[in-house]
Amino acid sequence: MAFDRLIEKIAELQNPTVAGLDPRLEFIPAFIREKAFARYGKTPDGAAAAILEFNKGIIDALCPVVPAVKPQCAFYEMYGWQGMKALHDTIAYAKAKGMFVITDGKRNDIGSTMAAYAAAHLGKTDVGGEKFEAFGADALTVNGYLGSDGVTPLLSVCRERGRGIFILVKTSNPSSDELQNRPFKGGETLYEAMGRFCEEWGKSLPGKHGYSGVGAVVGATWPDQLRELRRALPRTFFLVPGYGAQGGTADDAAPAFDKNGLGAVVNASRSILCAWQKRGAPQEDYAKCAREEAVRMRGEIMKRLGEIRLETV
Amino acid sequence: MAFDRLIEKIAELQNPTVAGLDPRLEFIPAFIREKAFARYGKTPDGAAAAILEFNKGIIDALCPVVPAVKPQCAFYEMYGWQGMKALHDTIAYAKAKGMFVITDGKRNDIGSTMAAYAAAHLGKTDVGGEKFEAFGADALTVNGYLGSDGVTPLLSVCRERGRGIFILVKTSNPSSDELQNRPFKGGETLYEAMGRFCEEWGKSLPGKHGYSGVGAVVGATWPDQLRELRRALPRTFFLVPGYGAQGGTADDAAPAFDKNGLGAVVNASRSILCAWQKRGAPQEDYAKCAREEAVRMRGEIMKRLGEIRLETV
Repeated sequence: MAFDRLIEKIAELQNPTVAGLDPRLEFIPAFIREKAFARYGKTPDGAAAAILEFNKGIIDALCPVVPAVKPQCAFYEMYGWQGMKALHDTIAYAKAKGMFVITDGKRNDIGSTMAAYAAAHLGKTDVGGEKFEAFGADALTVNGYLGSDGVTPLLSVCRERGRGIFILVKTSNPSSDELQNRPFKGGETLYEAMGRFCEEWGKSLPGKHGYSGVGAVVGATWPDQLRELRRALPRTFFLVPGYGAQGGTADDAAPAFDKNGLGAVVNASRSILCAWQKRGAPQEDYAKCAREEAVRMRGEIMKRLGEIRLETV
Repeated sequence: MAFDRLIEKIAELQNPTVAGLDPRLEFIPAFIREKAFARYGKTPDGAAAAILEFNKGIIDALCPVVPAVKPQCAFYEMYGWQGMKALHDTIAYAKAKGMFVITDGKRNDIGSTMAAYAAAHLGKTDVGGEKFEAFGADALTVNGYLGSDGVTPLLSVCRERGRGIFILVKTSNPSSDELQNRPFKGGETLYEAMGRFCEEWGKSLPGKHGYSGVGAVVGATWPDQLRELRRALPRTFFLVPGYGAQGGTADDAAPAFDKNGLGAVVNASRSILCAWQKRGAPQEDYAKCAREEAVRMRGEIMKRLGEIRLETV
């Protein structure tokens, strides 16, 4: 239930990180792209085939050491429905390899429309009595600007199917302060209010390791806010973007964790997917380089945490 | 540019409304569903085929009287990539019939990820030098919680391709007051701040009828806020949901318009799509009933507005 499976996987692998699968075509080695283009042309089908093969190589290389992957919807949607098929197939492949899958969709709407997104990404869709998983992730990122009407439709699906959501609280980008950091009358900022809602919404999805099924996205680029939110939101698991390419370091991410080294999963996308390019390695070594970078990142973070200990509450 | 084409279409048809295409299977007449299931089974392909045929019937019936359609992504995404293909084909069909298409995706992210969403829905995607439209809408709804980093990547695509965006400002749902109505220090509420940003972001996308390419979503369920925002945001075009099934009336929506009867487009989804069910009409008459309901809605709103007059600024 909730994020229990993610937390157990993190403890098992002693690795609180997630690899972002943002497979822009320019990140993909030419030998993969060209094979796909030769078969399908320079078409959405060609792009989708290249993305899927690239992702499979990354997943094969990472699954023994990294607990989770986070495909970013935008990079699949931009290749049309063919890209969305690659998203589906990527999720299915990662799950078959035992990885926890967080779909980064930042979806938001209200009532029955939000229930449709819940079905799309975390639940099952009914077609004339037959049920199938449209995309089938374990967790979904969500934007909470619309309030409880946008979140409660997800909670019942999460409860039934043991899924989780991560609500945007304090995002990693520079302009996140334009609205998120502004204090309301009384002093609470918008991101603090959103965090408080996460803690509240999470009460209906308790997990056995102390964290609920309603997590929060808090950027590694804001270590002070991470520290403060970790204290204020004891039951809220954090998804921490902004590590690596966006400038966040292992020191910056460290305040996201509790005394047992739990409570957060740190995302890196480009630094892992493009490790082969950064090192000037042969393109055929892209997956090996991704794994080496993931192992290096784990080492960097685990140096701060020491050991990750599971406490069942 | 901006919303000029939408505004001109509204003036031409003297109809400031948009039909929401939220094609849940239970809204679709049995004869369409059964034909699709007979051919493709009770599968995502079957659902997608039924949705597309239903939408085409609705579009054929509405295009002489309604200027725009607004497909809601969630109801396509829930049928997987097959549903997304139906979304693509629906958009292409509506555009071929001359309708303005607003994709209701409430997408949000930052930097190059938001640029990927911009390419997906409003721009073109590059595959090895070949360019194609992934979904190809005229406008997209956007959630602005992440600040300018989440909006500026859209502005350049809107400028290049004559597209527009609608930012969520004051949403139609009851719990929109949980965060959106809270006053910051100094007294400005969150929704007022978001509205002010729309006006600001819109400066870079001026239109020839006085409205920029950055619009705002403001619910018909909040007539006082509509009136106040119409005054405060003279260049911001409004997309007004909440009419009909959510309880908003023509009187409630009236404050969204300026003295020329411009400045807003009012959405109705269920009341149009399900008109045949509500009237107990034969299922074969679903498109005719949808058109009659759209004409009735136009009459109801135009009674308040009198005439819609174009003023070129």
